[in-house]
Amino acid sequence: MRFFVTGGAGFVGSHFIDRALREGHSVTCFDDFSTGKELFLEDAMRHPAFRLVRGDIVELDQVSRALDGGADWVAHFAANADVRHGTERPRRDLDINTIGTWNVLEAARTRGVRRILFSSTGSVYGEPTVFPTPEDAPFPEQTSLYAASKLAGEALISAYCHGFGFQGLVFRMVSVLGPRYTHGHIFDFVRFLKKDPTTLPVLGDGSQNKSYLHVSDLVNGYFTAIERAPAGFSVLNVGHDGSLKVKESVALITGRLGLSPTIAYAGGSRGWVGDSPRIQLDTTRLKRLGWAPARTLEQAVGETVDYLVAHPNLLD
Amino acid sequence: MRFFVTGGAGFVGSHFIDRALREGHSVTCFDDFSTGKELFLEDAMRHPAFRLVRGDIVELDQVSRALDGGADWVAHFAANADVRHGTERPRRDLDINTIGTWNVLEAARTRGVRRILFSSTGSVYGEPTVFPTPEDAPFPEQTSLYAASKLAGEALISAYCHGFGFQGLVFRMVSVLGPRYTHGHIFDFVRFLKKDPTTLPVLGDGSQNKSYLHVSDLVNGYFTAIERAPAGFSVLNVGHDGSLKVKESVALITGRLGLSPTIAYAGGSRGWVGDSPRIQLDTTRLKRLGWAPARTLEQAVGETVDYLVAHPNLLD
Repeated sequence: MRFFVTGGAGFVGSHFIDRALREGHSVTCFDDFSTGKELFLEDAMRHPAFRLVRGDIVELDQVSRALDGGADWVAHFAANADVRHGTERPRRDLDINTIGTWNVLEAARTRGVRRILFSSTGSVYGEPTVFPTPEDAPFPEQTSLYAASKLAGEALISAYCHGFGFQGLVFRMVSVLGPRYTHGHIFDFVRFLKKDPTTLPVLGDGSQNKSYLHVSDLVNGYFTAIERAPAGFSVLNVGHDGSLKVKESVALITGRLGLSPTIAYAGGSRGWVGDSPRIQLDTTRLKRLGWAPARTLEQAVGETVDYLVAHPNLLD
Repeated sequence: MRFFVTGGAGFVGSHFIDRALREGHSVTCFDDFSTGKELFLEDAMRHPAFRLVRGDIVELDQVSRALDGGADWVAHFAANADVRHGTERPRRDLDINTIGTWNVLEAARTRGVRRILFSSTGSVYGEPTVFPTPEDAPFPEQTSLYAASKLAGEALISAYCHGFGFQGLVFRMVSVLGPRYTHGHIFDFVRFLKKDPTTLPVLGDGSQNKSYLHVSDLVNGYFTAIERAPAGFSVLNVGHDGSLKVKESVALITGRLGLSPTIAYAGGSRGWVGDSPRIQLDTTRLKRLGWAPARTLEQAVGETVDYLVAHPNLLD
């Protein structure tokens, strides 16, 4: 198959591309390298079935031109993925995540591409009341500009499925860990400890309880759904049945680094505006398609720490 | 209080303005008259506490300048309200309903206005499985670009409540009827019958069952919530406990006009892509604030037909 992958130079997108190429598919990667890295495409660049197009998701004509040759699937990963700083630049999430998703849909529609896979987020559940949270949980309240912009992207994809006969796969995922991970709490912790191994400042009170997932398990989920999901629109949670409290996560990270810093909790049940104190998704739907995570959360955290230690320049 | 009303020259917006002026509030109306009409502002124009600003919701600087003087509440009605033709111009809903809502929020934020009332739609429930449908119904699937764009607007308002301390009132409403009604099925039926009183073409099979509401009951709901809703973000359904099948609605309309046309049903359970065969909202939340509709659906349909007959130029 021919995949058109937006944000393909990013953490998740580049793993998706490596997997697609390994399975014999061809890939066009569309990325502006604002947060993506050529380093992540080192293997892909050597592959004859790989093509790179530099472009900005916010510009419809750039996406459309890149899709001129058509594709079997669009895998749409390009996003502003920082949930924490939405209030500092309130237009950013709208531009990149909502208008960007519309641009991808419209480019696909006008180029005759009718299948799209989208990385959404478990954050669209806001502060859920049901755990583990299923895809049809009570209609939630959005607590961040990031989640609002991703929900808008989901809704656009759903409308394109109903209005234009698209097949759409929307993944609501927990925080993803593993090689090439470059933002989030482990990144922040490892960077802090590199500067000062004696003290670690932690947002919130350490009691937030969250599920994570290794990126290879996530990519397995994507390909399982590409093979087996029904036509039309599907929403699929993806996450691990296990979870870690922030303080457990801190212990795993400091232990892996061989450090024993003083932990300075900022206090409060939320790490930032829109932070959800508990994230645990019900993944029954994806499991029914034959998927299950292969790595433990300890492995996921450990590999992430090891990768950051092995690539210290990523921390700068 | 000082109200800033977007889309104030439209059907619902103009009734909101008349009510606000009657209660002694001052009103700035922001409208580009793309679908709004000066006719609807005839009374308001004569009122000393009324001010009109012509401008386009899609242009942030125009909204911001119009809000330079501040306000106590923004009542945001400006919208592309046509649920049926989204697939013909797929960018239109995104521009007007989603980006337009962000523009209003951002103009309010930068001008120190922190309260917003928003007309959303019961269409965000997609094809619900629970009737009457409550605000916390199972997380729905969007079936039209119109509903997707309104859901995105809701989500942005919620995120601004959490991120910037706004109070937000989101109303999910059924189809609204009454004087100044200028689009929807009654409009279409009356227009068809004016051309040819012998035959009435009807989309779908006539079995779609929908709740409606008289615009004066809707405006009562808005002012009830403005007075009594709690701080923060609230979603409030608004609709009538009664409902009408399309065929019942057709009988009321033709009866009111004194006509007996042959009814030509197009067939199918949906009138158009994204049409929901059944709409009935649970309005317990708004009723708990002290609201109840005062008019019957028969009155609402009858007054709508009478208004269109009395203003035949609106049908052209």
